[in-house]
This record gives sequence, structure tokens and C-alpha cells, in this order.
Amino acid sequence: MTPIISSPSCITLLTDFGDQDSYVGAMKGAIACIHPSLMVIDLTHQIPPQDLTAARFHLMNAVPYFPAGTVHLAVVDPGVGSQRRGIAVQLSTGFLVGPDNGIFSGVLHQNPAQRVVELTQTQYWRSPHPSSTFHGRDIFAPVAAHLARGVPIQQVGQPIDPASLVQLEMPSCQRLDNRIEGVIQYIDRFGNLITNIPGQTVEGQAWHAVLNDAGLPGNRTYADVDFGNGTALIGSHGWVEIAVRGGSARTQFDSSIGTPVQVVLCPLRR
Amino acid sequence: MTPIISSPSCITLLTDFGDQDSYVGAMKGAIACIHPSLMVIDLTHQIPPQDLTAARFHLMNAVPYFPAGTVHLAVVDPGVGSQRRGIAVQLSTGFLVGPDNGIFSGVLHQNPAQRVVELTQTQYWRSPHPSSTFHGRDIFAPVAAHLARGVPIQQVGQPIDPASLVQLEMPSCQRLDNRIEGVIQYIDRFGNLITNIPGQTVEGQAWHAVLNDAGLPGNRTYADVDFGNGTALIGSHGWVEIAVRGGSARTQFDSSIGTPVQVVLCPLRR
Amino acid sequence: MTPIISSPSCITLLTDFGDQDSYVGAMKGAIACIHPSLMVIDLTHQIPPQDLTAARFHLMNAVPYFPAGTVHLAVVDPGVGSQRRGIAVQLSTGFLVGPDNGIFSGVLHQNPAQRVVELTQTQYWRSPHPSSTFHGRDIFAPVAAHLARGVPIQQVGQPIDPASLVQLEMPSCQRLDNRIEGVIQYIDRFGNLITNIPGQTVEGQAWHAVLNDAGLPGNRTYADVDFGNGTALIGSHGWVEIAVRGGSARTQFDSSIGTPVQVVLCPLRR
Repeated sequence: MTPIISSPSCITLLTDFGDQDSYVGAMKGAIACIHPSLMVIDLTHQIPPQDLTAARFHLMNAVPYFPAGTVHLAVVDPGVGSQRRGIAVQLSTGFLVGPDNGIFSGVLHQNPAQRVVELTQTQYWRSPHPSSTFHGRDIFAPVAAHLARGVPIQQVGQPIDPASLVQLEMPSCQRLDNRIEGVIQYIDRFGNLITNIPGQTVEGQAWHAVLNDAGLPGNRTYADVDFGNGTALIGSHGWVEIAVRGGSARTQFDSSIGTPVQVVLCPLRR
Repeated sequence: MTPIISSPSCITLLTDFGDQDSYVGAMKGAIACIHPSLMVIDLTHQIPPQDLTAARFHLMNAVPYFPAGTVHLAVVDPGVGSQRRGIAVQLSTGFLVGPDNGIFSGVLHQNPAQRVVELTQTQYWRSPHPSSTFHGRDIFAPVAAHLARGVPIQQVGQPIDPASLVQLEMPSCQRLDNRIEGVIQYIDRFGNLITNIPGQTVEGQAWHAVLNDAGLPGNRTYADVDFGNGTALIGSHGWVEIAVRGGSARTQFDSSIGTPVQVVLCPLRR
Repeated sequence: MTPIISSPSCITLLTDFGDQDSYVGAMKGAIACIHPSLMVIDLTHQIPPQDLTAARFHLMNAVPYFPAGTVHLAVVDPGVGSQRRGIAVQLSTGFLVGPDNGIFSGVLHQNPAQRVVELTQTQYWRSPHPSSTFHGRDIFAPVAAHLARGVPIQQVGQPIDPASLVQLEMPSCQRLDNRIEGVIQYIDRFGNLITNIPGQTVEGQAWHAVLNDAGLPGNRTYADVDFGNGTALIGSHGWVEIAVRGGSARTQFDSSIGTPVQVVLCPLRR
């Protein structure tokens, strides 16, 4: 098959495969067999095994930083070998490839699907008889490489209705007058607590957050408080975040995913 | 020296260097000094320190998924600085570069060497006086980069007899009528137990596996049993594997590398 | 051997971001938006959170192995959002980009700055309003990509005096006649103890090291002693190192970063 585009595209990879095995390497080999000079960028392979919620969170936060045309390949796939569909999705900014199990529902909430296909065209797979336990290597990686080469999405499968895609329940937050009630949706390596309250809700206002009865001033950055002190801010993901300068908010505030957080807006002061 | 080939090749890297140090980075720097646009793909760097058996297993399972011409560079090297030889091997599908300590014996069992050289030509090394403790950076990485550029293998060293290469004892399995006796040879991140019994021995037959007195039905994929249940299947590596759907077979069956596994074929049912 | 191809450049990346989050992925996305075919090589992302001393050590040891023109991007940034400056540095062999907090002081001790600028030109940033908490993605990664594309360093910021850069206290060693007193400055994955005593001080001489009252012969390589025995040698980083063949010197000698080590030269024997 001759190359269809020559302009460079890239593939990102997010899995729960960890780094002790060679599963990720085998997927990259399957890509290199189709498109040897393609850039493949790891988002993370440390999603806890089969944790679709964490996978959804990281994809949603990373996809906006990649150039147009990027193919995002995500394999957290507890249903491999079952009737769950394999899909490719065309966005205004690129493509998604992986299982139809809700892993893409965060991205699609921000960036609606323009076209979705179920992967049915076996000529774009590694072999017409893929492993029943590793579609990442045998179906998704080859399809992603073909899309990155410029194969039109409608060639790799049958059109399906975007509304039919599996949705993951996303944590939601409630606004009540000057209060927003949310929860911690993720805790990063530094112990920063990332809530499900969008940063836009506090932008340009005076505000503070409340976590386990502690009040935390709404600031611009970690350096607005002294070392060892807690602060609330709009984190780099775009969500309200609670942090301790030079320390771990996870430890200091005894909190975990799902712990409630309140944001209080102070309209009198502005 | 002008580039000898223009077609893209790639190098894979497998080591026991972990990811906290910059040893892998230094090897990639040594490659980039020779061939800056070369794709370098990590298989894994989490081989337990000096564990040649694990290194052999991962190489054997990953090499078949890479395109023709790939150079596989493997550095688990407890004998660095001793009399152990450094070698390059030409396969029908690519090249191997690393120490002659048995690390390649799994690959070579499946894919015999066409030509082997001992690395003696210091003009292809990072410097004619390499570090005595890090041949990965100073000898193997540069030689791999030159091979990926298209330098013929006979230029990087002296021919040696493939039969003289160090062999690692490979676990073997025994067939007795309708039973195959094997062992667990690897446990992956998900707790899947990978035996040393080739998948071909059960393909197209009715079968079950026995592990610690538990009988496990031979199925096609994880999804053939309910969540929490154990199953046997042909895993993505091509070996008989024991898994628990949505769980860890390692934990559920209290097993470790070396634990015996039996496969029983059921000729009456087919 | 001199570089063969000079056109493609590459970026190295060193951070304390770990591998569970997608922060590194987002930085690579920001780079790909500017220069999609650029090679990005990970040095390590496992620097302990905010540990500038470890970051300094790894950068200093890895930079010399990369080709001319490489851009080294380092983000361990406890002062993000404060008044600390963002800088780019031109070396004789490439570029450094990151915060002005001493992270580059090891590299600069070996390889003095030719030109330093403070990053002020927002047209080279991801957006003119970068996140206050993630300059790695929004300022440093884009600037590094522009430098790798060939943008002259004087375009990305205002010149500053190299002597004004923040210095990290580096551990130093003392020479007293035939003794050199130093300390362990780093312990690697294998448990090798890397001192702050340069290898040149013992090169070509008979010597031994003393650690916690144990005397360790100065050898050329691990294989000069039997398995399980300790040895001193010049490690691959170029520092005097204490190792146990096939074992861990960290465990065997009950030592940690900062533990004193003495090297004793034996002039009579040569």
C-alpha cells in the first residue's frame, strides 16, 4: 500500500500495561510494521489495571495539547474478547482508536465526535485472526497507524451512531448560589487534589475552597502561600485544585478520590 | 561517512537499568550521535537486575512483532568487563546486539542465526577506550546504530560459530499421552500466569489446565468466564496462560514462577 | 567518530513528574505542535519530587553523551509561579532550557555558558497566558522546540549575566597528600555507590577506597572480583564508585547519600 500523506502525524498511547512487560513494545512494533518513521508518544502506561475512570481523566486532560491530526490510541480493555465494539472516532482535531467502553467519554464531552466507525475491516489489522486477548497489538495499533498514514476513517469500519457509544458516569458538580459542591476526581504524584469543579467557575472572582472543614484561599499559584501551607488554585488541567506548597495535600488533608470539596465565591469583594 | 541506507529502520532497547537513573538516556544519546533521526523503541527497562531469564522471555515474545531490519539491542550484562564476548547476530528478520550470555537464546531458538560476529572493530564504538562497566553505552549502542544505518555486520566484528554462543537453560515441558506437564515461566502485571506450554499443543482441541488441584477450562478469551472466575487460554504471547477475569490469577491461585501446571487434552469431545 | 548527519536535532527531557500522570505527555504534545518530527528522548522522570540535587546529578552525567545541538529541557520547579526566572542557556555543545534554580549548575561547572537569556518573549510560548503552575508545558517545552528548530537564542529572551544564575551547593572533595576525602553523592538502581571523587584522581595509579572501615581495592571493572565481593572502580559516570559484584553495595555497606568515603593512593607500587 502506498503512503497517502507525507506530512508528519503522530500517535499517542495510553494503556494500563505498566512498564515491566513488553506489551507496549509489541504495540509499537505493530505500528512500526505499517509506518516505521511515525512518532509514538506515551501518555502513560500506569493506569491502574482496568481503571477506566483514571484512563478517561488522563485522556481528557492530555488530548487538547496535541497537534491537529494526532491519533490517540487508548487500551484499557477489561472486555477484550467479549462483544464490546472496537471503534475509531474522528474529532475536529484528530482521531481516537480503542474499545467502546467509555474510555473516550471525557474527551468526547469536550470535543464531540464528527464520525464514528466500528472496526470491522480486517485488512487493516495485524492479521485477519487477531489474538482474542490483545486487540491493542493486533487491531487497535495497526488501525491507528493506518489512520496516521492518511487512510480515511470510513475505510477501516462501518459507520455507527455516536449516540450509541458507551458512556462512563462522570462525576458532576452542583452550583447553589455562590457555592459549588464537587469532589476530588484525581490525585497526582505530588499529592495535589484535582477536583471536578471547572476553573472557569472561579476565574476572575474572589473565592475559597473548603475541604474537611479547612478553608483554603483561592490563589493564582503555589508560590502565593508560604512553604507548607495549603492553597486552592486553578490547576494546569483547568480544574480547581488543592495543593500544599512544597508538600502533599493528599497527606495533609487526609483525602482521597471522591472526598467532597466546596468552592465558595465571594461576590462582595469584587 | 555518508548514509548507507535511506529506508527507515529502528532499534529496540531492553535493559535492566530501570527508570530512575539516566543510563538509558545516555545509550540513546550515544545512538543519536551516530544516527539522530533513528526511532528507538523501549521494550522494557524493568528487567529485574541481572535476570537473564526474564530478559530472554521478553525478547523472545516481542521480536516477532517488529518490522524486517529492526536492530534489537539488549543489555542485561552481569559479566561486563569480564571475558564474555560482545556479539552482533544477523537473523532473517533483523539484528541482535548485546552480550553473549544467553540473553538471545529464546529468540534464536525460534529464529536461527544466519551470521554471528564478535564485536572487535573499535572504530564502530563510542571511543576506542570504552568504560569497563558500561558497554551498553560505549559499544553495543553505537554498533546497533551503525547496523541500523546499514553498515554490513561483517564490518563490525570477527565471524564466530553460532553453535558457540552461550545458551540459557530454557524451561521445557513434557508430553505424556493426553497430558502436557509444564511450569509457570512468567507472571505479568495483571497477575496472568504464563506457562511454558506452547499454545499450538491445544489449538483446535477441547482441553483444561490443572494448577494446584484447581481445574481450569480451556477457553478462547477472558470474557468466556464470569468476572472473578479463572480460565485457561492461549495468551497473546502464544503460550498457555491462566487468568482470572477482572482479577489476578497470581493471587487467587497462590502461584509463582516455577509452579507446575498440567494441560489435559480431551480427545473424546472432538 | 564525528556526527555523520547534522540536520535533525533532538530534545532531552528530565523532570520529577513520574510516569503515572500525563504531564510528560502534555509537554511532548506542546513540542509536537511546533515541531512534529522532532526526536524527544527521556532522560528520567523519576527525580524525587522537587529534588534539585538529584536532577543536577543526572543532567551533569547525561549531557556529555548527546550530539551537538541537542536541547536539554529540565523541569524540577518548586518555584513555579514565583519570581524565579525561566532561562535558556547556549553551551558550546547545545542548549539548556528550564527554571533558574540551580538545576543546571552541574552541567555548567563542566561546560560553561556561552550565552544566557531570561525567557521573556511570549510569542514563543504555548499561549501568551501560560498556566501559573505548569511552565514546563506552556513555556519551557515550546521554547525548547523553537530552539531545536533553529530559532536563535537571543530571540527567545533578554540577555542576562551567566554569573547571576542560581548555584546549587555541590558536594566537594578534599585532597590531603595521598588521601582524597569525599562522600557518596548518588546511589543507582543496582546499589552502586557513586562518590563525588573524580575518576581522574586515581587513573593510572594503584589505589583503594575506605568506606565504614572496609577497605576496597581499586579495580578496573566489576569482574575483577568474585561474585559477592566489594570493589572500588571508576564508574561509567566518571566518578569513583563502590560496587559489589552481582550484589548491592548499598545493602552490604549500610551506606547512604552523604556517607564519607576515602580514597588512598599507593605511590610506592607504581
